[in-house]
Amino acid sequence: MRPIVSDIPKLRINSERLKADFDALAEIGATRAGGVSRQALSTEDIEARMWFADRIDDAGLCLRDDDVGNLSGVLLSEDSDAKTLLLGSHLDTVPNGGHYDGVIGVLAALECLRTVKEAGLKLPVHLEAIDFTDEEGCWQSLFGSLGLAGMLNSTHINDVEENHAPFRAALFRAGINPYAVSKAKRDSDTLAGFLELHIEQGRRLDDAGLDVGLVTEIVGRTTSLFTFYGETGHSATTEIDKRKDALQGVAHFILRAYGLIRDQYPMGMLNCADVKVQPGVYNMIPDKATLTVECRHPGEEALAEMVGALIRLSRECAVEYTLTVNSQRIAHMPAATMSPLIVQRVESVCKRLGVSNQSLISYAGHDAQIISNLTPTGMIFIPSVKGVSHNPKEYCEWENVVKGADVLLHTMLELATGDAK
Amino acid sequence: MRPIVSDIPKLRINSERLKADFDALAEIGATRAGGVSRQALSTEDIEARMWFADRIDDAGLCLRDDDVGNLSGVLLSEDSDAKTLLLGSHLDTVPNGGHYDGVIGVLAALECLRTVKEAGLKLPVHLEAIDFTDEEGCWQSLFGSLGLAGMLNSTHINDVEENHAPFRAALFRAGINPYAVSKAKRDSDTLAGFLELHIEQGRRLDDAGLDVGLVTEIVGRTTSLFTFYGETGHSATTEIDKRKDALQGVAHFILRAYGLIRDQYPMGMLNCADVKVQPGVYNMIPDKATLTVECRHPGEEALAEMVGALIRLSRECAVEYTLTVNSQRIAHMPAATMSPLIVQRVESVCKRLGVSNQSLISYAGHDAQIISNLTPTGMIFIPSVKGVSHNPKEYCEWENVVKGADVLLHTMLELATGDAK
Repeated sequence: MRPIVSDIPKLRINSERLKADFDALAEIGATRAGGVSRQALSTEDIEARMWFADRIDDAGLCLRDDDVGNLSGVLLSEDSDAKTLLLGSHLDTVPNGGHYDGVIGVLAALECLRTVKEAGLKLPVHLEAIDFTDEEGCWQSLFGSLGLAGMLNSTHINDVEENHAPFRAALFRAGINPYAVSKAKRDSDTLAGFLELHIEQGRRLDDAGLDVGLVTEIVGRTTSLFTFYGETGHSATTEIDKRKDALQGVAHFILRAYGLIRDQYPMGMLNCADVKVQPGVYNMIPDKATLTVECRHPGEEALAEMVGALIRLSRECAVEYTLTVNSQRIAHMPAATMSPLIVQRVESVCKRLGVSNQSLISYAGHDAQIISNLTPTGMIFIPSVKGVSHNPKEYCEWENVVKGADVLLHTMLELATGDAK
Repeated sequence: MRPIVSDIPKLRINSERLKADFDALAEIGATRAGGVSRQALSTEDIEARMWFADRIDDAGLCLRDDDVGNLSGVLLSEDSDAKTLLLGSHLDTVPNGGHYDGVIGVLAALECLRTVKEAGLKLPVHLEAIDFTDEEGCWQSLFGSLGLAGMLNSTHINDVEENHAPFRAALFRAGINPYAVSKAKRDSDTLAGFLELHIEQGRRLDDAGLDVGLVTEIVGRTTSLFTFYGETGHSATTEIDKRKDALQGVAHFILRAYGLIRDQYPMGMLNCADVKVQPGVYNMIPDKATLTVECRHPGEEALAEMVGALIRLSRECAVEYTLTVNSQRIAHMPAATMSPLIVQRVESVCKRLGVSNQSLISYAGHDAQIISNLTPTGMIFIPSVKGVSHNPKEYCEWENVVKGADVLLHTMLELATGDAK
């Protein structure tokens, strides 16, 4: 089976139609700061999904959802035994996030399908534009893609060390049965690949003045809790030098940890994201301080070394402040490699379309990281102005969105017509 | 009117009876860590007050409560126009606190009244053993003594910047009408003074091997919030050196603040008690960090200087981390001077009873600090072993509790028979 039109190379997505979708979606969960809050499974997220379902209907595509809440529009091939080429990203956002993160990947995927349908192309694969559930991790990071890849286990919803009851309630409220999420698993034999268009969220493309990035790898990530234990007591009557103050210890650790990464792991990324202090009472010495630490590194081995170095550092800091410390790994997402074949395809499409580009490592996690375990996967980045992300000021030049969407369209067509496996 | 017995000098409190009360009370709100949690207005606090009311009844004293929830046992003088000599402290505790803080002052006061009653002394003053509401500030620090001194204003229960609804609900639940608390004000003309026995909560007496401390001053205290503002963004894709990270800024401030106080305010006390971080999400740069800071200093002027120096330091730290900072004073308790006449009386009583002693400044706040605004006030400290306080390990030698109670008894008798004004 081959496409029925011959001028495929001239095909382009409809920029106005894509922009209209983008503007309409930006209204759902809009914040006063000019950003958007659509945390996964929230009322706003559900509203965005209903809106997306309407767009799928309007486009005359088949609506599909699965047991983990992923929502798709499907353009069926005439060959009912065809494999499915997935395209997409996520519509959920961090609290008061930006308009582009995730959204561009879902809306461009939908627009690609509409473009193909409008052109009357008959393809030997089904095309599916998918919105993955909770990429941002409001409840469980990459929940939808983990479900689709069959990588969810019962601890994701039932972990006894943490109260997951509100998560389960939120799933039920969104019409997702938490005890059936494993049914969302897709068979790799049914898939022809996955493509994700996304904003870079860093400043490399913007600084270099390039149109798109070809992602070769997605870095690994380890999230840990470091808990420092001291001794409480009346803060007014315990001499400062005789205290076992968990907050002073954690403050010292934070500053030294950034120094360590700067000096010894220049490819590494660190975020000390949160501190919880106990008892947290104005006249009592803090005897417990728990720090959330996230580490990323493109090298799986270097990441492990980096986390190890931080654990050793935490012990040094604890000794210095007469404290004890405990570290606990709460999440680990291994580094992922994108399909070299797809990277080549994207590169040749860019060349053909006159779109400037470079290869990049992604420091942020993406659904592509998970889906790459299931089927050959490729990721296309567009420049984030000044690298701003997870922020209402997140911004992309519209012409770059359009270029990225056209690269997505033609990479999809190449995979659909040439190399669907 | 004069006492009817002549061997007052030989009078002593009943150590066994006091110890039985002490042990019984330690059961109310007992924690697994061996401490006690009786936060003001909690079920445990209310249970302790009911228990105290029963002891007052058992002792044949008059039960009295006021509109701010202070609870007293009164031994009435035969002279119905007599003034009242107050003795007491508080039965509420910090979370998982010790057995002695506050408790000793209330139970010893009750024991003094029982001793006088048992001895059949007729005194020209009413004696009142009082338990003040919420000394520890679970809701409002020194709430009961502020009410009795007529120093409560509507912001204590109605502050619009903070939601005081749970506080008002807790007051109602404990039978206290939040809108009538100002009625608890006592007229200074009706009072003959106030005496508070308390543990030192520091280690000066224990280190010096002394029996009691004569408090001359109680230090002033200023509690402030320092809020650092940065800019959030995706932590995986924003280079560490380009971040505006509020948590790094606050960590730097904490360490430098302790250095500043150590170097420049050796008489000052600092506690960085709590940090709240926003957004507190593992993959987002912290853009807001709010630190609770408590400063104490015996000199009112030096305290103001110290707070000013910390504000300047916070600005320096903010600039260094490309942040902004805002500081807000949320509480101020001026330093208080104890009645020199009463300090002399305590000293002469100690001499007569053979109790070793020294003069001390109190770094902790006490109800005496507030009541000193209303009536001549004295405070007697007993040694805290190793200075441990606000901690389940808080401990006092029982013989020191008894010595302190006897000093309280005889100071009370001297004031009652000699110098009641």
